[in-house]
Amino acid sequence: MILVFRPGSTKKEIHHAEQHLKELGFEPHTLYGVERTVIAAIGDDRVTTKEHLETIPGVEQVLPILAPYKLASKELRPETSVFEIGGPGPEVKPSKHKIAIGGKTIPVIAGPCSVEGRKELMEVAQAVKEAGATALRAGAFKPRTSPYQFQGLAEEGLEYLAEAREKTGLPIITEVLTPGDVPLVAKYADCLQIGTRNMQNFMLLRACGEVQTPVLLKRGMSATLEEYLLAAEYILTGGNRRVLLCERGIRTFETYVRNTFALAVIPALKEKTHLPVLADPSHGTGVRSLVPAMTKASIACGADGILIEVHPNPEKAKTDGQQTLSVKEFAKLMKELKPVAEAVGRAM
Amino acid sequence: MILVFRPGSTKKEIHHAEQHLKELGFEPHTLYGVERTVIAAIGDDRVTTKEHLETIPGVEQVLPILAPYKLASKELRPETSVFEIGGPGPEVKPSKHKIAIGGKTIPVIAGPCSVEGRKELMEVAQAVKEAGATALRAGAFKPRTSPYQFQGLAEEGLEYLAEAREKTGLPIITEVLTPGDVPLVAKYADCLQIGTRNMQNFMLLRACGEVQTPVLLKRGMSATLEEYLLAAEYILTGGNRRVLLCERGIRTFETYVRNTFALAVIPALKEKTHLPVLADPSHGTGVRSLVPAMTKASIACGADGILIEVHPNPEKAKTDGQQTLSVKEFAKLMKELKPVAEAVGRAM
Amino acid sequence: MILVFRPGSTKKEIHHAEQHLKELGFEPHTLYGVERTVIAAIGDDRVTTKEHLETIPGVEQVLPILAPYKLASKELRPETSVFEIGGPGPEVKPSKHKIAIGGKTIPVIAGPCSVEGRKELMEVAQAVKEAGATALRAGAFKPRTSPYQFQGLAEEGLEYLAEAREKTGLPIITEVLTPGDVPLVAKYADCLQIGTRNMQNFMLLRACGEVQTPVLLKRGMSATLEEYLLAAEYILTGGNRRVLLCERGIRTFETYVRNTFALAVIPALKEKTHLPVLADPSHGTGVRSLVPAMTKASIACGADGILIEVHPNPEKAKTDGQQTLSVKEFAKLMKELKPVAEAVGRAM
Amino acid sequence: MILVFRPGSTKKEIHHAEQHLKELGFEPHTLYGVERTVIAAIGDDRVTTKEHLETIPGVEQVLPILAPYKLASKELRPETSVFEIGGPGPEVKPSKHKIAIGGKTIPVIAGPCSVEGRKELMEVAQAVKEAGATALRAGAFKPRTSPYQFQGLAEEGLEYLAEAREKTGLPIITEVLTPGDVPLVAKYADCLQIGTRNMQNFMLLRACGEVQTPVLLKRGMSATLEEYLLAAEYILTGGNRRVLLCERGIRTFETYVRNTFALAVIPALKEKTHLPVLADPSHGTGVRSLVPAMTKASIACGADGILIEVHPNPEKAKTDGQQTLSVKEFAKLMKELKPVAEAVGRAM
Repeated sequence: MILVFRPGSTKKEIHHAEQHLKELGFEPHTLYGVERTVIAAIGDDRVTTKEHLETIPGVEQVLPILAPYKLASKELRPETSVFEIGGPGPEVKPSKHKIAIGGKTIPVIAGPCSVEGRKELMEVAQAVKEAGATALRAGAFKPRTSPYQFQGLAEEGLEYLAEAREKTGLPIITEVLTPGDVPLVAKYADCLQIGTRNMQNFMLLRACGEVQTPVLLKRGMSATLEEYLLAAEYILTGGNRRVLLCERGIRTFETYVRNTFALAVIPALKEKTHLPVLADPSHGTGVRSLVPAMTKASIACGADGILIEVHPNPEKAKTDGQQTLSVKEFAKLMKELKPVAEAVGRAM
Repeated sequence: MILVFRPGSTKKEIHHAEQHLKELGFEPHTLYGVERTVIAAIGDDRVTTKEHLETIPGVEQVLPILAPYKLASKELRPETSVFEIGGPGPEVKPSKHKIAIGGKTIPVIAGPCSVEGRKELMEVAQAVKEAGATALRAGAFKPRTSPYQFQGLAEEGLEYLAEAREKTGLPIITEVLTPGDVPLVAKYADCLQIGTRNMQNFMLLRACGEVQTPVLLKRGMSATLEEYLLAAEYILTGGNRRVLLCERGIRTFETYVRNTFALAVIPALKEKTHLPVLADPSHGTGVRSLVPAMTKASIACGADGILIEVHPNPEKAKTDGQQTLSVKEFAKLMKELKPVAEAVGRAM
Repeated sequence: MILVFRPGSTKKEIHHAEQHLKELGFEPHTLYGVERTVIAAIGDDRVTTKEHLETIPGVEQVLPILAPYKLASKELRPETSVFEIGGPGPEVKPSKHKIAIGGKTIPVIAGPCSVEGRKELMEVAQAVKEAGATALRAGAFKPRTSPYQFQGLAEEGLEYLAEAREKTGLPIITEVLTPGDVPLVAKYADCLQIGTRNMQNFMLLRACGEVQTPVLLKRGMSATLEEYLLAAEYILTGGNRRVLLCERGIRTFETYVRNTFALAVIPALKEKTHLPVLADPSHGTGVRSLVPAMTKASIACGADGILIEVHPNPEKAKTDGQQTLSVKEFAKLMKELKPVAEAVGRAM
Repeated sequence: MILVFRPGSTKKEIHHAEQHLKELGFEPHTLYGVERTVIAAIGDDRVTTKEHLETIPGVEQVLPILAPYKLASKELRPETSVFEIGGPGPEVKPSKHKIAIGGKTIPVIAGPCSVEGRKELMEVAQAVKEAGATALRAGAFKPRTSPYQFQGLAEEGLEYLAEAREKTGLPIITEVLTPGDVPLVAKYADCLQIGTRNMQNFMLLRACGEVQTPVLLKRGMSATLEEYLLAAEYILTGGNRRVLLCERGIRTFETYVRNTFALAVIPALKEKTHLPVLADPSHGTGVRSLVPAMTKASIACGADGILIEVHPNPEKAKTDGQQTLSVKEFAKLMKELKPVAEAVGRAM
């Protein structure tokens, strides 16, 4: 930590700060400049917080040196981790197929926003499988902005998902909303999804850290890169090492999109963490016509996987129809993605 | 709803849309302009969503007319609701004192960010009481950005809070993080707090709707006004009518503060909803030296109550010390607030 | 400056950086930590930039210690500067009255968004004078988002403003859009306004630094506090010392307002600079019904002056009618502001 | 325009609004709903503004139907315009080469942030030419955040640029800061650049509309899509039809980048306008290591051209070194871009 003092701060204040830092385990190096005094505190930044040190009298600014996360950091593992989903991992899952995320091949996880019914799900599962999707995603528990909107089919939806997996061989990914549901959802799903609104639902993060099912953790819509990796750290410290990250758009002043798709976070995350980083251009834009171009951009800048909303009839979709591709549009896009992936040294 | 069609949309598309709207219960009025066709769909906007109607072929834009919330709206009740906290409400609470929020008198809810220990809490409770606070707030369950930070004392903290209430007569407000803890926290607290990161934790909102303890619902750090009132609506539809709103700062590009304190939301909310609206200048700025000025501003623009962090020794606070007033600073501020409240026709 | 090196940076890189810092006039102090090396470079931060030092090989992060502005800083003058407008300053102005900004008394600068005609201006000038305004503001040159909108009366508007000053004794403030117009506008106006879209129009800032007419510099709608004070520094370094700052709302994700009124910048600026800080609640919210509450909040948190849009008939205003008070609303507000000012130790 | 009235608005108010709309040339269609009255005003939205209509008594909300720009709109021309730069256009330019922007081939405009000296410029011009750049860009007039920073070589820099063009055959693009300099810069440059801070410098936009040199108009860092196209409209209405757009990052809460690169604006703009749309990944991220990935993403999502900062020795660059590629990095990137362009049906 670097502590910068206010002009005119006293020797007593400096001394007090030095003592306080020593108590915390730091080795303070004090530098008396012409206008200001600075203490460089050598040691492990994670024993305290920037905010705490800012309360020391005389201190104007505190500048951390180390990232506050450990298990998620690249210092732990310099290469991108490759995680299997759906296969015999720490827990054996009943899926026929398994996929790897983080390797050369880019998986495409597709499906409708929500599980709307048995028939509808089987239809879309078969269709996305044929178009080349490598996993199926749909929500059984739905977080909805309004209490008057469709809230999902709950366990019934999970059963349909499991059936769709049996029929198609696609591993299934579905959202979990609350700690109490983690065991239930983990019983059915090959991968748990934590949605953007729950990225800092710390009890849910902890609960997901206690199972061995991989977790797809979406970025919060106003989360900094550091907050995001600390959220992942919650899961990792619980003992669950398979965390997948996913950019899904942030909230800014822009109005022609539902969210601003902050794609530079993908190469930026890959500099900081070994965890695979996916992209969700459906939520990332919120506008169907922008999805194909932004899926290509996601792959071009290094995404390790794609999450995309597909529905046989987007107009009839109960949720998020305005950002959902039809099966035909999806099949067309899948063909267009292959050369882009190859152009950047990846495969599909 | 108003549906605006793309230039060149066909008669067939218009007819299809009219049919679809009729099925949803709307009465469509179609207007053929020179460049575009518009359908004004008369009826209850809440039976569908803007996003759903945008998926109708040919539709370029959908403009809702009605607010999507009902129970929170001013149409339900034109005057600000006055809620009692701590007194015999729908559930009888063991507090000696009760306070009213939403009336002429502005309550000040003060306390440390977290319950750090029995002795510390009793000390600060007594001190804020003497300085004029009308309720005590401190966290027993703490949502923390990093898993390596202090996470709160849990039920032990709740017991200390109850003891502090006994000693001071101040009603107590404390945060609840997850649906499973709602009954436990409601057993102790006079008012449940839902924090900014949980504003769209819909399962928690539902759980808080099922008890009769008042709920202080903080605004999400990137929530729109509409999302905020819909979050309140989740609690209200469950049957719990005592919801208090609270502006606590939003996330923007500004860096000299921890959050941008968007005070205009206070008069704006009061135009839309009958629920009382409080202000939290401690989180709203995140900077101790800015808290006094912004507390005055909060009262001047119509806040129905103030939430403020106070600690006997902010430097020793385990959490949020950098935005916390000392007891002495708080006592001084309380004296300064009185004339401001009177200047805008309120009392303290 | 503090330079933080990447883990694994070499001795050669460290040595190279030390040499480079010495060449720039810094005295480098190198600290070898367990995980990282840090150089604290003692000297004047302003001889280089954070961005420049970040290009030194091996450097991960650069942390400046000093503020990059000087003449605007509180280190130059610890108390708020009091500037006269309209009286015999460095240049003698023909105004009958002069006002002081930065002192105990809070001036209210009112008027229509744009000068629409001679008759209309005389009417509103007289009306705001009677209601208690201390200066008149209206735009002769108007920056408009669309080329199809009313663009102002130009010099004709300046003449009407001068006539209104003669008739009412109110000093006049009006916007200047481009360096070439500064001499013309300065011939008429008691104070030049630089609008939010021109806050970083550096040629205009320089041109305003070369005259002796006071300058009201509005904050850019996405300017940081530091960028704002550096913009003021452009004017100050030219030799014009009378710069007034003004918060007028920033651009965020919020949609119930035209801008988010970031009032905490007022006390924050007053900690950093001696320049007076005004507030513009009309643009700060963009919504007429929110203006009264937010004007009170502005005064409560320490604004040194108020800028407010008033029109005899807002519905007929050619520009910004939706945020403009009627004369009657303004007169009512002026009465309500007095006790708020007194409650915080100011006068009106 | 659609006008939505407040609940309880009177017949008199409705009638007054109808009259007002007729006076403006609209044909009002009034719809009495259960809760609210709505007027659909058929006619040309551009004769008035949303803001003006919001001042009509009783009106709660105004919803525009038409885009407020015309010449920039896709309704004028459905295909992307292809503009020549550097060749004999409306004005004959002395460049040996000309390039086309908006066609299948994607031009790469490269160069240092600022012209630092004759020797340095000749060196980098030759180097980027060899690496495959199709135009040279460097600033002679520099907009700098601080008055204490290097401000550019002015006309001397323009002369060096012209010489570099002679030597390399690359057309030159350089920034103009103020209306008075437009004729001078247009005398030398093949394309004028308007920077992000000047996107709403309306006098500069007008001045650039009065010459026939193409204009590269960068998006303002907090500009909406509509404001951006209206800024282009200023130039177009002046008679200069060759306007190039360019996404260069927006200001959001993100801190790991200097700007958030909002790439979805590229396909979104291409749905609204026929003007070519470029991307500037150097400013778009502000971080050198992120530039290669984001350049690929720009091409993948449909950019019509790339603007990129290259310097022989970024560490010695007087401006923006932290986001500048070395010549070697640039040459490597150029090779990697070709397959990405081909994968999306373009060429380089």
